[in-house]
Amino acid sequence: MKTQQRKIEVCISPALFSLHDTTSCIVVVIDILRATSAICVAFENGAKEMIPVAKVEECFEYKKKGFLVAGERNGETLPEFDFGNSPFTYMNSDMQGKSIAITTTNGTQAIDVARNAQKVVIGSFLNISVLTDWLLQQNQDVLFLCAGWKNKFNMEDTLFAGALADRLLNSNQYVTDCDSTIAAQHLFNLANGDLYGFLANSSHRKRLTRLNIEKDIEFCLMMDLTRVVPILEGDSLKCIRISESMDKN
Amino acid sequence: MKTQQRKIEVCISPALFSLHDTTSCIVVVIDILRATSAICVAFENGAKEMIPVAKVEECFEYKKKGFLVAGERNGETLPEFDFGNSPFTYMNSDMQGKSIAITTTNGTQAIDVARNAQKVVIGSFLNISVLTDWLLQQNQDVLFLCAGWKNKFNMEDTLFAGALADRLLNSNQYVTDCDSTIAAQHLFNLANGDLYGFLANSSHRKRLTRLNIEKDIEFCLMMDLTRVVPILEGDSLKCIRISESMDKN
Repeated sequence: MKTQQRKIEVCISPALFSLHDTTSCIVVVIDILRATSAICVAFENGAKEMIPVAKVEECFEYKKKGFLVAGERNGETLPEFDFGNSPFTYMNSDMQGKSIAITTTNGTQAIDVARNAQKVVIGSFLNISVLTDWLLQQNQDVLFLCAGWKNKFNMEDTLFAGALADRLLNSNQYVTDCDSTIAAQHLFNLANGDLYGFLANSSHRKRLTRLNIEKDIEFCLMMDLTRVVPILEGDSLKCIRISESMDKN
Repeated sequence: MKTQQRKIEVCISPALFSLHDTTSCIVVVIDILRATSAICVAFENGAKEMIPVAKVEECFEYKKKGFLVAGERNGETLPEFDFGNSPFTYMNSDMQGKSIAITTTNGTQAIDVARNAQKVVIGSFLNISVLTDWLLQQNQDVLFLCAGWKNKFNMEDTLFAGALADRLLNSNQYVTDCDSTIAAQHLFNLANGDLYGFLANSSHRKRLTRLNIEKDIEFCLMMDLTRVVPILEGDSLKCIRISESMDKN
């Protein structure tokens, strides 16, 4: 199949999302530490659906309806919630078939901002290869939306945007004239091989280190531990599962 | 004099400026191609004051009062204006003692956004060394505000922010925990020695190349052709001129 060259843009903050035209593009929402990583793990472990909500109060409405509720603010699990957003929390068989409402400081806010785009999917290092393959199979422009930290630029989300841009640009099926894409790609290539070391000075890693979650950080920087592409359908994230055989096509 | 370590932050878009507390810091406004470069050249050539205004109509009000008016939109000089924002325009003896109102697509909008900060100064590669020296003599935190392109991230402003951050951090009088500062510094170090080549793929350079202003671009990436630090006083930019002898102290 001959495909036209598609465009890549990177948006480094949800506060800048409205500057982009996303009526006919796929938005990949990125919150590496830790929301989008945790979402991939939940689906990998059999979750049926996840409802991303921007406000804590909305989660409680879902709890009344029988959903599990997950969430954090400023990196800490909320009281009365079933889970925080450590990916390890979702790594158990209890996830099977569960519906979960989730709210986080940055990630679910970013999903909320993007929800009117043509398609919204979830990206993390944990699903980077299957996500790349899935994007290559679509014939659409892409925008990578970094959740950042309270609308500010952050390093780990930008590094992932750079990693994904690097793979798509190397396929020669995509082009970019977007400076934040070029910058993200440069930063990823600079860090490559040692994301953990490169992030040593980053603000969010320092913030999370104070919360004693080094193990979470190491885990969230590992590649390809899941084969899921979470995709927004209405208000709910569902799961596209990429089988290894599909992957080889 | 023992000085406390001061903080550096980089804001990559005027649309994110309100996320920063600037009540007690110096804001350096950056629009390398070409507003802040042109402003430095105008002062170097003797301009008395420059009034940055956000709207074209405001410039006409100043014209009625006898000011020269300068401006562009989308890189092109506005009709009925005395100048565009090519730095070469300001490189003549007619500047001596003149008052100029200026409006540009990005740069003057950024100055407008920053005007309530404690101090606002103008940065470009053309005044990087005197600006560095002047900042080192102040005892204040700094925020580098990149004008960007219509509120989006752009490469050349980020590279300058990285260059300035690199110098201040190397003085050991500043620290940062801001990811956009760290990213800008990485990008500058990656480009160092060949800013022009590094920018070859950047969106704005391509945009300006279409307008045949390669010479402007080359000029705006040259370092230390001026000894001025333009500073906002009320509505007006005035000029601090750094003598070579002061510089050596």
